[in-house]
Amino acid sequence: MKAAVFVEPGRIELESKPVPDVGPLDALIRITMTTICGTDVHILKGEYPVAKGLTIGHEPVGIIEKLGSAVQGFSEGQRVIAGAITPSGHSMACLCGCLSQDGPDTKHGFKAMGGWRFGNTIDGAQAEYLLVPDAMVNLAPIPDHLSDEQVLMCPDIMSTGFSGAESGKVRIGDTVAVFAQGPIGLCATVGAKLMGATRIIAVESVPARQEIARQLGADDIVDFSKVNPAEEIMRLTDGRGVDVAIEALGRQQTFEGALRSLRPGGTLSSLGVYSTDLTIPLDAFAAGLGNQSIVTTLCPGGKERMARLMDVIAFKRADLTPLVTHRFRLDDIVAAYDLFSHQRDGVLKVAITP
Amino acid sequence: MKAAVFVEPGRIELESKPVPDVGPLDALIRITMTTICGTDVHILKGEYPVAKGLTIGHEPVGIIEKLGSAVQGFSEGQRVIAGAITPSGHSMACLCGCLSQDGPDTKHGFKAMGGWRFGNTIDGAQAEYLLVPDAMVNLAPIPDHLSDEQVLMCPDIMSTGFSGAESGKVRIGDTVAVFAQGPIGLCATVGAKLMGATRIIAVESVPARQEIARQLGADDIVDFSKVNPAEEIMRLTDGRGVDVAIEALGRQQTFEGALRSLRPGGTLSSLGVYSTDLTIPLDAFAAGLGNQSIVTTLCPGGKERMARLMDVIAFKRADLTPLVTHRFRLDDIVAAYDLFSHQRDGVLKVAITP
Amino acid sequence: MKAAVFVEPGRIELESKPVPDVGPLDALIRITMTTICGTDVHILKGEYPVAKGLTIGHEPVGIIEKLGSAVQGFSEGQRVIAGAITPSGHSMACLCGCLSQDGPDTKHGFKAMGGWRFGNTIDGAQAEYLLVPDAMVNLAPIPDHLSDEQVLMCPDIMSTGFSGAESGKVRIGDTVAVFAQGPIGLCATVGAKLMGATRIIAVESVPARQEIARQLGADDIVDFSKVNPAEEIMRLTDGRGVDVAIEALGRQQTFEGALRSLRPGGTLSSLGVYSTDLTIPLDAFAAGLGNQSIVTTLCPGGKERMARLMDVIAFKRADLTPLVTHRFRLDDIVAAYDLFSHQRDGVLKVAITP
Amino acid sequence: MKAAVFVEPGRIELESKPVPDVGPLDALIRITMTTICGTDVHILKGEYPVAKGLTIGHEPVGIIEKLGSAVQGFSEGQRVIAGAITPSGHSMACLCGCLSQDGPDTKHGFKAMGGWRFGNTIDGAQAEYLLVPDAMVNLAPIPDHLSDEQVLMCPDIMSTGFSGAESGKVRIGDTVAVFAQGPIGLCATVGAKLMGATRIIAVESVPARQEIARQLGADDIVDFSKVNPAEEIMRLTDGRGVDVAIEALGRQQTFEGALRSLRPGGTLSSLGVYSTDLTIPLDAFAAGLGNQSIVTTLCPGGKERMARLMDVIAFKRADLTPLVTHRFRLDDIVAAYDLFSHQRDGVLKVAITP
Repeated sequence: MKAAVFVEPGRIELESKPVPDVGPLDALIRITMTTICGTDVHILKGEYPVAKGLTIGHEPVGIIEKLGSAVQGFSEGQRVIAGAITPSGHSMACLCGCLSQDGPDTKHGFKAMGGWRFGNTIDGAQAEYLLVPDAMVNLAPIPDHLSDEQVLMCPDIMSTGFSGAESGKVRIGDTVAVFAQGPIGLCATVGAKLMGATRIIAVESVPARQEIARQLGADDIVDFSKVNPAEEIMRLTDGRGVDVAIEALGRQQTFEGALRSLRPGGTLSSLGVYSTDLTIPLDAFAAGLGNQSIVTTLCPGGKERMARLMDVIAFKRADLTPLVTHRFRLDDIVAAYDLFSHQRDGVLKVAITP
Repeated sequence: MKAAVFVEPGRIELESKPVPDVGPLDALIRITMTTICGTDVHILKGEYPVAKGLTIGHEPVGIIEKLGSAVQGFSEGQRVIAGAITPSGHSMACLCGCLSQDGPDTKHGFKAMGGWRFGNTIDGAQAEYLLVPDAMVNLAPIPDHLSDEQVLMCPDIMSTGFSGAESGKVRIGDTVAVFAQGPIGLCATVGAKLMGATRIIAVESVPARQEIARQLGADDIVDFSKVNPAEEIMRLTDGRGVDVAIEALGRQQTFEGALRSLRPGGTLSSLGVYSTDLTIPLDAFAAGLGNQSIVTTLCPGGKERMARLMDVIAFKRADLTPLVTHRFRLDDIVAAYDLFSHQRDGVLKVAITP
Repeated sequence: MKAAVFVEPGRIELESKPVPDVGPLDALIRITMTTICGTDVHILKGEYPVAKGLTIGHEPVGIIEKLGSAVQGFSEGQRVIAGAITPSGHSMACLCGCLSQDGPDTKHGFKAMGGWRFGNTIDGAQAEYLLVPDAMVNLAPIPDHLSDEQVLMCPDIMSTGFSGAESGKVRIGDTVAVFAQGPIGLCATVGAKLMGATRIIAVESVPARQEIARQLGADDIVDFSKVNPAEEIMRLTDGRGVDVAIEALGRQQTFEGALRSLRPGGTLSSLGVYSTDLTIPLDAFAAGLGNQSIVTTLCPGGKERMARLMDVIAFKRADLTPLVTHRFRLDDIVAAYDLFSHQRDGVLKVAITP
Repeated sequence: MKAAVFVEPGRIELESKPVPDVGPLDALIRITMTTICGTDVHILKGEYPVAKGLTIGHEPVGIIEKLGSAVQGFSEGQRVIAGAITPSGHSMACLCGCLSQDGPDTKHGFKAMGGWRFGNTIDGAQAEYLLVPDAMVNLAPIPDHLSDEQVLMCPDIMSTGFSGAESGKVRIGDTVAVFAQGPIGLCATVGAKLMGATRIIAVESVPARQEIARQLGADDIVDFSKVNPAEEIMRLTDGRGVDVAIEALGRQQTFEGALRSLRPGGTLSSLGVYSTDLTIPLDAFAAGLGNQSIVTTLCPGGKERMARLMDVIAFKRADLTPLVTHRFRLDDIVAAYDLFSHQRDGVLKVAITP
């Protein structure tokens, strides 16, 4: 089969690999659509290390080709997705509800980011076939009337973005700021709206992203290239600040801006993948006495999560297809990486079809 | 009346002041016992600015001398305490349960640390008399059978320390680390034990404090002067880390140690008053993907809180009198500050009696 | 001034009363709009006892006429609402966040339904003037661009209805059933949608109410006059049941239907005012082993709540003006009661204007 | 092997059965100790139906004899317990944290009480060998220094009892009533104390149980054979009522007593297995307006839960060995049922050793 593999920093290439064997708890799915994530670009650039030869990608849509001997409750030929995070269901972490930090192979059952396996510690989804571990935990059937493209954001972008609002515990009547309106930030905006935020302030400088942010629920747009965003948010809120600030980029600047935008007692919900140490300025932190919280979340996975997200789409609570701006064949994935990693041509997300 | 006032950095002195007038919502209490807090030492050193001439202190035990005309439900002569934090009860912050960040005089109802008024924005408790604002919110009658010294830790130390465990959401079976075993840290240890932590690891180098930590509930002591505390905690927990790490000092070193001690998905509950920017190391933060939380809490106040804490003592769930190591008359408060600020003679807390 | 007072069971009449005196913590507001609640009909019928001569009504919209001497932060002439529930802000109940069960005049600070004062224990809003107690806790300024009619549902109907979803802890992706689509049930439907319910099943038999339920967010309508609603909900959900069932009528039939509609581990969120003992059928309760919860909520009050609800309207998250189906002058309130209590002419809510 | 099987109502007898085969996800454990539960007595009496020939019992302590081919992370010869509830880890219920209502074989993933398999839907623990399904989810190694008898209460009694306090969300300073001090109620008392309840009122009439309740943490004992317990609890609390009332018997009388003991806004946490419909009296329910909650919990299971409970014992937070009052050999289990079901000789729990 064809698979996009990490060759060396700067090179992800399409190679030929054998179709994997199916263990008793696995499922083999034939990929019908997948996409490229910002994290994959970190891998491409060598900023996040993975093994050479690993197949990249963690956002699968496909059809069950073969089920492991111990897998029950599914049938071959079913259309399914699996989350970017594939918890085992049986680690200490899973059993206390912390599915993303799954460490079944550790002595104590926790591993930082352990639930992220596709395209990280095992072969990923940018290929013709994908082996899904712990299939009973991770396969989520797609409702018939939803297209592949309609559910393509569920495995990662939508799950991660929504979790920014969920971990921030957005309540009806909250004012929420979302720092950066890339795919994750846009989904955080949608998530905040779905949870009842009454005023959503989106921080973004790219006009096309500002526009889609408004479509998806932002009430105010703050252009950080023109104003200091925290100051502008304080102005917009009469000096009060926001109840929840969601960071969706992974930079000191957005982290700090989010912190400075909070009301006393507010929550900074961080989604970004950082690549440097962070600084918490003393004044923005009220010397530690402001009843502020900083919470972080790695994309929630598992079939129950996926089913909920597909319901959001099936019942028309949100439509995320506008995020898919470009379409490529798997054969052209190198070109897709090139476009996506340079954010050319207004790209938000690309659909890759084997 | 006599009152310990801030004169200038380095000088807190006993001066004579008029007994304050009592407004309709106030109560005047005659102080029968009070104490000195680490925060007062910050004020003394000029590290935390307050107005010259302000009476210092925020931990009152006393007797109601006079009630404001609109105050109901109390009677003169009652023995009472009031919390270090005296919320108004009617700000937006109070009404959403965030009593410590009370801003009744702001446009929007929130103010960072706004609930801390005694010895900060209004005259404090190290005096013969204290005016308690919003008396109906803040006066808490002392059960007859409890002595002044038994309840002296309630207004601040106990409320703050316990909140470290509460904000960390300690659950039955949790492993908890507490960084520093000063008065606040010791109370955090007690709080963690009261909430069901099964293993409490106390980080402390002073032998006397190690000893009292054991008495109050610590199962393991880590001496940071001999080992790297985060590494030792990882060793003690077989590489797992703790569910909750409580920071009770206010330094980068303890903040970082607490962060590095967490299991994936764990919570750093911060109580310390910091005096510098903080750094979050990228690796300790799992690049933002570890489902970690950092929560901060300013001492919970209000009469309901005080009543709960006094119940802890009345029903013998904890005895914090060992924290009172020295006793002074108000007339000798300058000597008390000298002893306390230099942490001489094994001092933990001093009792001051007018 | 004119006021609608309870004379005896079956009779609420417009009488003349003196304009009340204003105590130090009170505010006098000139009512510009109010409405009649189902609870008022219970009072009218003698099913809920109040003192003879009491002014009825707990849903005030008005203008501040006079402020008590100790009230700060408001000004005469401001347009305001106050919640149906007017907490004191200083009882034990308030200080632990249970504002509706406020008992400042009890020994211990709790009183069942104690926060409901207007038209229950003190004179209410169906009058030319209303005295608002604890004004700093309860007055909420109306944004300039919102009309009286736009905010008329905030004091009770919207706050109560939304609380059905909030107390049920509706999450993104939940399936929610709402039993009865009167004004409260319709607002529960809106609340469930605002919190991210992806499928809302409304139980209602009146076609006009079914229609407005669809407009406000219901995905499915179950007509209990034609099918057994719990069975139909089980059919619609493939035997799973709903995550949250909201009871919004106050009858055994709806309570039991809601319970029978739950999935294992689901929550029955009860809003109705019951007038008989309730039965929990053993089978519907899984003998007590189904991890089900039954939660009840009395309308949340206080200015912070009111501000949040007005934000929902100001930021166009919901428009509840369709609920106001009829308009009367205060002089004609007896006719309004007649129409409303007999639910004639498709009435949902009436607007009463002095 | 020998096994105690349900023959017909009134008869549980020791029979010979083949040692079960081990599937890929199973583990076979050799039982070294088990016990009899009140639920088993319901089965014996025919009040709870199970298949004839089923082996009874759900509280296993033993040694791993054989692991299924797909089971990793354990080794044969390890001492382990498994919870009374054995979740699969992969159902929709499990993945949303509702492990006890596990329905992996249902279309939607939920089944009322579905997690209870041992001695209910599959062969149980009162035998020489036990087949544990989903072994990676359910096996919990016993710390070396704990004896079988020390951990015998973990699988059910301790987990269930503690969950009464946990589901009731007991907080530091709460007053808690526990209705009935059988093994479950006693563990609820311990759980409430572990979570910081400052005053625990135990309702019990048997002197020996009163005595052990005091030892385990009860502050007050109310003898329902002498006083009306709700009235007495109101008297003890000055008319306030308790924050949390835990029902641990399964009768209308205790359910209603618990409800009548609550303060407004309080929580009734129900653990009992009921055998009749329940009545909620209108007055005790404040007509549905008292912000009361009624929550139910089926024994939490899974290895993470078991590990936490064993930590409670290992770190000496509680010692439940006083609950084991009698010891029998498996050969004498009929006699053990006879003693236990008639509650003769002050029996609390019996230890059964094959």
